[in-house]
Amino acid sequence: MRLTIDVTARLRRAQRAVADAGITALLLSPGPDLRYLTGYQAIPLERLTCLVVPAIGAPRIVVPFLEKRSALDSPVSAAGIEVLTWREEEDPYALVASLLPAHGTVALSDRMWAAQAIALRNALPGHEQRPASPVLGTLRACKGADEVAALREAGAAIDVVHGRMADWLGVGRTEREIAADISCAMLRAGHATVDFVIVASGPNSADPHHGAGDRVVQGGDLIVVDIGGTMPSGYCSDSTRTYVIGEPSGHVTTFYAVLQSAQEAACAAVAEGVAAETVDAAARDIISAAGFGEYFIHRTGHGIGLETHEEPYIAAGDSRSLAAGMAFSIEPGIYFPGRCGARLEDIVVCTEHGAERLNLSPHGLAVLNG
Amino acid sequence: MRLTIDVTARLRRAQRAVADAGITALLLSPGPDLRYLTGYQAIPLERLTCLVVPAIGAPRIVVPFLEKRSALDSPVSAAGIEVLTWREEEDPYALVASLLPAHGTVALSDRMWAAQAIALRNALPGHEQRPASPVLGTLRACKGADEVAALREAGAAIDVVHGRMADWLGVGRTEREIAADISCAMLRAGHATVDFVIVASGPNSADPHHGAGDRVVQGGDLIVVDIGGTMPSGYCSDSTRTYVIGEPSGHVTTFYAVLQSAQEAACAAVAEGVAAETVDAAARDIISAAGFGEYFIHRTGHGIGLETHEEPYIAAGDSRSLAAGMAFSIEPGIYFPGRCGARLEDIVVCTEHGAERLNLSPHGLAVLNG
Repeated sequence: MRLTIDVTARLRRAQRAVADAGITALLLSPGPDLRYLTGYQAIPLERLTCLVVPAIGAPRIVVPFLEKRSALDSPVSAAGIEVLTWREEEDPYALVASLLPAHGTVALSDRMWAAQAIALRNALPGHEQRPASPVLGTLRACKGADEVAALREAGAAIDVVHGRMADWLGVGRTEREIAADISCAMLRAGHATVDFVIVASGPNSADPHHGAGDRVVQGGDLIVVDIGGTMPSGYCSDSTRTYVIGEPSGHVTTFYAVLQSAQEAACAAVAEGVAAETVDAAARDIISAAGFGEYFIHRTGHGIGLETHEEPYIAAGDSRSLAAGMAFSIEPGIYFPGRCGARLEDIVVCTEHGAERLNLSPHGLAVLNG
Repeated sequence: MRLTIDVTARLRRAQRAVADAGITALLLSPGPDLRYLTGYQAIPLERLTCLVVPAIGAPRIVVPFLEKRSALDSPVSAAGIEVLTWREEEDPYALVASLLPAHGTVALSDRMWAAQAIALRNALPGHEQRPASPVLGTLRACKGADEVAALREAGAAIDVVHGRMADWLGVGRTEREIAADISCAMLRAGHATVDFVIVASGPNSADPHHGAGDRVVQGGDLIVVDIGGTMPSGYCSDSTRTYVIGEPSGHVTTFYAVLQSAQEAACAAVAEGVAAETVDAAARDIISAAGFGEYFIHRTGHGIGLETHEEPYIAAGDSRSLAAGMAFSIEPGIYFPGRCGARLEDIVVCTEHGAERLNLSPHGLAVLNG
């Protein structure tokens, strides 16, 4: 699907947030903040592209001359944002500085490169720098209906891939070979890019951040498959299922049942006005009560949208209230170091009727013949 | 291939460079700088991982508790670098600051996230910040024999993909469908990740930074295919060929011949001690002499290694001398806005005998039946 962004409305909301935060301007380099506000999908390069969004006055964008055509063809130009270009022999940081007063506070995209942040500091010595997420994170966290539709489409695409896992997870294959098959299937299922493919088999399943390596899958393995990509709309998928090659042991069956109950309880806890930490606790309490608390070593979830990880975070200590339109993962895990582990992850959207799950693949431990 | 990095030797060279630059310490977040110095392939996350490399004294690394196992299993730990962990309720920036004197100068990885650079500035108010590339870029630019071998392997992998392009470039298919086929083939050819797939057909071929969109390939199209990924070794591939569906026009044949001559001349100009700008001029002079100078709108090349774009840059105004072991692209292009364009790109390594090309796919305009 193609999203038609109301750039003018988003910029107006952003400018209001900038003013409310007492900030002079947002300085946004290519990435999700820029895409959210303008629909411009610029490439992150060492050459500076920077959208300047002042609290008051017209936003303008500074782009390398080589990117002029892309910028003019993008929604940036359609929204009437002036495009200022710079050539190789010119200083883009001085150009940005010329658009701002001598003193103030600028908020930079969180993921702007440090080299560019330092150059902006040198070009704007009278400005304090802050990250942009406290200003833009809240705006981006509550999705509109078209954004939820885009996330639903992403969820369906990744579900298709989990549905075919029996074709690829086999004894004698390496995690890396399996990951290549999964990546291809993700692209064929409609993703524009593959962002991560975790195939964590056997003892590797105990490491939440294992990627995909040279280990060969063996009979009896638990295999955590955590996969996500970005759709042409810009919105991301992210879903985890745990597979087992052959009949699982009693221990595995027991702890997986606890995990599934915990994930179910966390989803059931989602509602408007509920604190993020309450959802985390719903999962954690069940895992702890079963005696596995020390093996659930990460937060329950993270927001998702134009980035795989964004606000809100579903974690202990985060007392912010959930609101309708917030989209995030619910992904408890239980990990026995050096032995095995499992994780179960859906993306959900908070609605006035509770959580809508965007991933509908079966939630039980998936037993494969291998 | 697996590279065995002499972490101790690389750290020693880096510490000498840090001292020579009058810097207190390098602060490196996950990415190519960290991987180059230590072999540690950490995931970039909002949670801070930071290698602290002082001019004098032992390097140490700060990692989230969740990443402790990854860090301990990585070459960081094998090299004897102390791993300091922090838990969710702790402040990792204060932990980094506790490892440094109150005043000095720190050099940050160029691609550290701005949000982290700002937090480090707040935690280290007595420190000036600089980008790390002036310190590490030179070390990383000159590849050792094992790194050249890794780049050669990457070049062979991408050549395999260009060799199969006739299977995918067909009339009636969208650029995006073709890009999905190419991505799958890149993974099957041995890449760990697909970093970019440009399929620029028809008028899109005139835009050097076009990605892959919904345009349907038509008879007579020029198609610029610029593709690159990262191998399990961490080293990158990047190669461009231009294809034409059906017999090319006289105009296309003429300007492509100029392009091929220019690329050949630039490769021939590569030698130890030659300035980077001389290589750029070798290509540009031929294109200009043929009357197409205004349509060659970008630099001739960029270094490549653990990043697709790194030092050295092959551009007008860059008078730095090439040295044996430097690896970079030679990729002139000719672009007629709104009409068509072509680019021809090989990765080459500077040796004592001139350029060694790492991409050996045929260099002529590839005529396909479509």
